[in-house]
Amino acid sequence: MFKILAKSSISKARAGKLSTPHGEIDTPAFMPVGTQGAVKAVTPEQTTEIGAQIILCNTYHLYLRPGLDVIRQAGGLHKFIGWSGPILTDSGGFQVFSLAAIRKVEDEGVRFSSHIDGSEQFLTPEKVIEAQLVFGSDIMMPLDECVKHPSTRSESLTAAKRTTLWAKRSLTPLIPLSTKWRGVSEGRGEVWGIVQGGMYKDLREQSAEEIRELDFPGYGIGGLSVGEPKEMMLEMLGISTDNLEYDKPKHLMGVGFPEDIEEAVKFGIDLFDCVIPTRLARHGAFLTKEGKSIIRNARFEKDFTPLEEGCDCYTCRNFTKAYIRHLFIAKEILPLTLMTIHNLRFYMRLMDDIRNRIKGGTI
Amino acid sequence: MFKILAKSSISKARAGKLSTPHGEIDTPAFMPVGTQGAVKAVTPEQTTEIGAQIILCNTYHLYLRPGLDVIRQAGGLHKFIGWSGPILTDSGGFQVFSLAAIRKVEDEGVRFSSHIDGSEQFLTPEKVIEAQLVFGSDIMMPLDECVKHPSTRSESLTAAKRTTLWAKRSLTPLIPLSTKWRGVSEGRGEVWGIVQGGMYKDLREQSAEEIRELDFPGYGIGGLSVGEPKEMMLEMLGISTDNLEYDKPKHLMGVGFPEDIEEAVKFGIDLFDCVIPTRLARHGAFLTKEGKSIIRNARFEKDFTPLEEGCDCYTCRNFTKAYIRHLFIAKEILPLTLMTIHNLRFYMRLMDDIRNRIKGGTI
Repeated sequence: MFKILAKSSISKARAGKLSTPHGEIDTPAFMPVGTQGAVKAVTPEQTTEIGAQIILCNTYHLYLRPGLDVIRQAGGLHKFIGWSGPILTDSGGFQVFSLAAIRKVEDEGVRFSSHIDGSEQFLTPEKVIEAQLVFGSDIMMPLDECVKHPSTRSESLTAAKRTTLWAKRSLTPLIPLSTKWRGVSEGRGEVWGIVQGGMYKDLREQSAEEIRELDFPGYGIGGLSVGEPKEMMLEMLGISTDNLEYDKPKHLMGVGFPEDIEEAVKFGIDLFDCVIPTRLARHGAFLTKEGKSIIRNARFEKDFTPLEEGCDCYTCRNFTKAYIRHLFIAKEILPLTLMTIHNLRFYMRLMDDIRNRIKGGTI
Repeated sequence: MFKILAKSSISKARAGKLSTPHGEIDTPAFMPVGTQGAVKAVTPEQTTEIGAQIILCNTYHLYLRPGLDVIRQAGGLHKFIGWSGPILTDSGGFQVFSLAAIRKVEDEGVRFSSHIDGSEQFLTPEKVIEAQLVFGSDIMMPLDECVKHPSTRSESLTAAKRTTLWAKRSLTPLIPLSTKWRGVSEGRGEVWGIVQGGMYKDLREQSAEEIRELDFPGYGIGGLSVGEPKEMMLEMLGISTDNLEYDKPKHLMGVGFPEDIEEAVKFGIDLFDCVIPTRLARHGAFLTKEGKSIIRNARFEKDFTPLEEGCDCYTCRNFTKAYIRHLFIAKEILPLTLMTIHNLRFYMRLMDDIRNRIKGGTI
């Protein structure tokens, strides 16, 4: 269930509360990414302390490894990974099309070899939802087809059409469960619809309309931030959300940089996920309001200030740049954790700030 | 200051309390190793939660990198690394002789090239103490010469003699500081003496006597667990401690496996340090009362029990073998942290148990 608590008067930005079987999320929210069932380099306890209310895991990765059998026997994904808050699981579409060696995509499904062991796999929209039902995900995403940029109109059309077809078939596994299948009330997660359409205005519009007709309780906006210029991304985003109900929650999949998030919020986006903060951290880059800095830089050798003045994260409360730099150079494991904590907290503070500005009417 | 609180009636085992400028330690105690200024893969917060009251850092490593300048300007080692509890710093002797390319060892000091950048370095006993004064270590260890096993009598004698010579010279940097130099009272750490003597009974005895004459407030027993059979280790340990005052605290340097610790306690050892629990964890091995197990083992694929039944650590309270195995196979960073927490807590519980058994008179 999604409740809008405050609306901007100058844009489509809104602050709200999304209820899921595993808890509530203040939106707009950022979801740390735990691709393989763990937010990289931090414990669930640290993830909670950072302020994250929901994490994202990848259906594609978890389906391949450890596999459904293990997760089913563990009692679902939450129990398996020791995270008691909400989980959104990605459809796997983006991962199949970016990581795996595709053999054949047809309306029936996608045949590919696993990036892990080369084994041949066949995913269908039904299987993808069945997997997420096994996980017990709070928000499930249907299998979609994501095209790269640039793509031809014909490629984009085929992918968008197939995404709609697959979205319809995603409902099949839910039918025996309940007639009212989108039910937090039954303690089961929701399936959201994904909008595609590449970088073609009319295809975006058409995709949004087709998906809207299926009356999903929320939406993922897919296929953006795949290499297109920022203006194009925002234009396509606007067309996508303009053609969906204002009052349903929307997730801009895989986006993005802090400035992208700021902009996307104005188009009515409520959920974000991105590997940027965690990946940058492991590569030695930390985020501040001034941008990105490289901790190994010699100018930090004797810098005994925190990564960011005023940051309230565990790292900034206890450690200096000089120390974290030393640990990075010494190839320790701890700085990966410390930098991840800071970068994620930076994103959480950004979202706090965005929510406050929406409530204050200044966004 | 060291206070013995309970004595075994059947061995030299004792339970006590060691006071340092940064806090008290219940002994016998195990010190997690933070070679480069960080216990590998865990935060200071996690180290505290595990129950560690003191950690060990390496003078050799920190002297080479980040160097004294950085640590001095940071305000000392505790501030630099964000650990407010006691720190014992190792002399560097063992590391020089095991890691560096030795150029020349003479009575004056040891010339070697750094294992980090090949730079030529010259360490003297005075420099080693001066470094530890910069660190602000709670317990400082003098430069010593450690021989490998087997070594000839002549090699062992030379090293033991030099260790005594260097122990005397270790006091020089302390003279200007205070006439009463071993002073918790002054808020400064203590220098302890190191006993060597290789695997020769009379040399061990002689070394202990020479070091004892210098009236250090505590002792390190060095040069053991360097490849000799366990019976020989315990024999040499017994000779070393028999020739030192019973009521002064003693550290068995770099030892060891749980069973070694049990045995060494009976010879009156109060402090232990070893990389075993942390290193095993990073290599995928976890410890239980039954011994060592490899988490990648296929039999753990669907094992939804904690690493050790009854363990109270964060890892065992929240995660299963199946999950940690999955993370190891998926090459995540988190399992290194989770396994380190468990293995260190395993050691802490061992020490709790040993202290309780001493107090209960059953050791």
